[in-house]
Amino acid sequence: MRVRPGTRPDLAALDPAGVPAGPRTKAEGLAASGELGVRLAEYQERLYAASTAGDRRRVLLVLQGMDTSGKGGTVKHVIGWFNPSGCRIRAFKAPTAEERGHPFLWRIAKALPQPGEIGIFDRSHYEDVLIARVRELAPRKVVSRRYGQINRFERALAEDGVTVVKVFLHIGRDEQRERLLERLDNPDKHWKFNAGDIEERALWPEYQRAYELALERCGTDTAPWYVVPADRKWYRNWAVGKLLEHLEELDPKYPPGDFDVEECRKRLIAG
Amino acid sequence: MRVRPGTRPDLAALDPAGVPAGPRTKAEGLAASGELGVRLAEYQERLYAASTAGDRRRVLLVLQGMDTSGKGGTVKHVIGWFNPSGCRIRAFKAPTAEERGHPFLWRIAKALPQPGEIGIFDRSHYEDVLIARVRELAPRKVVSRRYGQINRFERALAEDGVTVVKVFLHIGRDEQRERLLERLDNPDKHWKFNAGDIEERALWPEYQRAYELALERCGTDTAPWYVVPADRKWYRNWAVGKLLEHLEELDPKYPPGDFDVEECRKRLIAG
Repeated sequence: MRVRPGTRPDLAALDPAGVPAGPRTKAEGLAASGELGVRLAEYQERLYAASTAGDRRRVLLVLQGMDTSGKGGTVKHVIGWFNPSGCRIRAFKAPTAEERGHPFLWRIAKALPQPGEIGIFDRSHYEDVLIARVRELAPRKVVSRRYGQINRFERALAEDGVTVVKVFLHIGRDEQRERLLERLDNPDKHWKFNAGDIEERALWPEYQRAYELALERCGTDTAPWYVVPADRKWYRNWAVGKLLEHLEELDPKYPPGDFDVEECRKRLIAG
Repeated sequence: MRVRPGTRPDLAALDPAGVPAGPRTKAEGLAASGELGVRLAEYQERLYAASTAGDRRRVLLVLQGMDTSGKGGTVKHVIGWFNPSGCRIRAFKAPTAEERGHPFLWRIAKALPQPGEIGIFDRSHYEDVLIARVRELAPRKVVSRRYGQINRFERALAEDGVTVVKVFLHIGRDEQRERLLERLDNPDKHWKFNAGDIEERALWPEYQRAYELALERCGTDTAPWYVVPADRKWYRNWAVGKLLEHLEELDPKYPPGDFDVEECRKRLIAG
C-alpha cells in the first residue's frame, strides 16, 4: 500500500477491488472501522489539547483520485470519527483568477491545518502535476519542475511538525462507469454530473500514468504516498483510517494545568 | 424561544433546564433529533446542489453562550447530521494582532459561508459587544456603536442570500459550576480549564446583562435571536436542529443537468 520512495508503482497491477490487508468482509470492515474511530478520536483530542500548550504538531491527509473515487465520501466518513472543530477541510477546485495569479502552492499554504488540527484536502497541489500534465495546462517544463517544488514544500511542512499522509484512492475504470451511470439514473444526482466527466474518463490511461509519475517522484520518506483500493467503500474507509494511526505514533499528551486544582475547586464551590 | 425584535428578554426568568417545547424526555429528544437530522441532511444536499447552478443562498448559525454552555458540543452534534464538506466551521478566539488592526467585522466577513454552505460560528462578532463591554476592552461609546454596525452588516448578509440564525445557549450558573468542577476532577480535561474561567464566572450578572442588551438591540426580523435552554444537552441539540428547519423554508431544488442523459449514457457504456 505504501509506495516505496523512488519506485514507480504499476497501478494496472494493483486490484482496485482488492482487500490486501486487514478485514476481508464488509461486516469485518465496519466493525474494524468503528473500533478504529474510537481510538483515533481520543488521539485527536490529545493532539488538539497538546497544541494549547505549544505543541506545533498536526496531520494533513491529502486525498487524490479519479472522479467518483470517493474523495468526498472519505472526508465524510473520516470526519465522523473526529471532533469537527479540530479539523480543517478544504476541497480544491479549478483555481480562481486570483489563485492563478500566484504560485501554485500559494492556495495550498493558506489552507494548511493549524497546530493541533487534522487537515483534510479533497484534491490538492497534486492537481498541478495531474490534470495540468494531462491537459497541458502549463508547459511541460513547468510541470516537470513542480515535483521538486512539491517535495521541498512538503519537507518544510514536516520540519514544521506536519505529518503528511498522501492517499491515492485507486478506483477501477469499470467501477467508475457504474458510479457515473448511477448518477445519470437519478435526476437528484444530475448536478454531480457533467459531460466533461466523460471526456476526462477517455483520458484514463494518461491520468494513470500521471499518477504513477507523481507517486514515484513525490513518494518520499518524509511524506509517503499510499495506494488504497477504492472499489469497495467499506475497505477504503477502513484503510484510510488505518493510515491515520500515524496519530498514535505522534503520541500527543494532555498538557498539565498551570493552576492549583484545590484552590480552584474551593473558589468554584464558594461562588 | 425567539426573541421578539425590539424587546429585551429577562434571562433570569427563563429556565435553563426547561424543555419549553418539543420532546419532554431524553429518549424522546434523541429520537426526535435522529429524525430531524435525516431530514436536514437532505435539505443541505439540495442547498449545496442548488449553489452549483448559481443559487447564492446559504445559512449561518451563530452560537453564543457562557463558558461550558456547549458551543463546541453543539457544533459536533449538528455537523454529525450534515456532510461536513458543505459546512464551514469557525471558532473565534481573542483577536490576533492582525485582527485587532482591522474593524471588528473584518475577521467575520472572511469566515462567512460560501453559497450552498452551512456556516457555523463558535462565538462571533457578538464577543465585541459582550466581553468587550464587560471587560471594557473598548470605550463604551465604541461598543455602543457596534450594535448598529452589526445590524447593518447582518442585513447586508440577508440581502446577499444568507439566512442568519443566532442562538444563545442559556446555561444556569449552577450547571456551569458542575461542568467546571468535572473538568477539575479529570486531569485529562485540565487543558480545557484556566483560572481566568473563574474570574469570568464572577462577572456572571454583568455578562447576562450584556447578553440581554445584545439580544434586544440585534434581535431583528432579518436575523432574529433565539434563546435555547442548554442545561440538558439532549434538549439543546434538538432545539438547535429545530432552528435549522429554516433550511426547509428555503426549499432549495436539485438543479437539472445541462446535458443529454441518453447520449451520455450511450457514451459511458461504449467506453
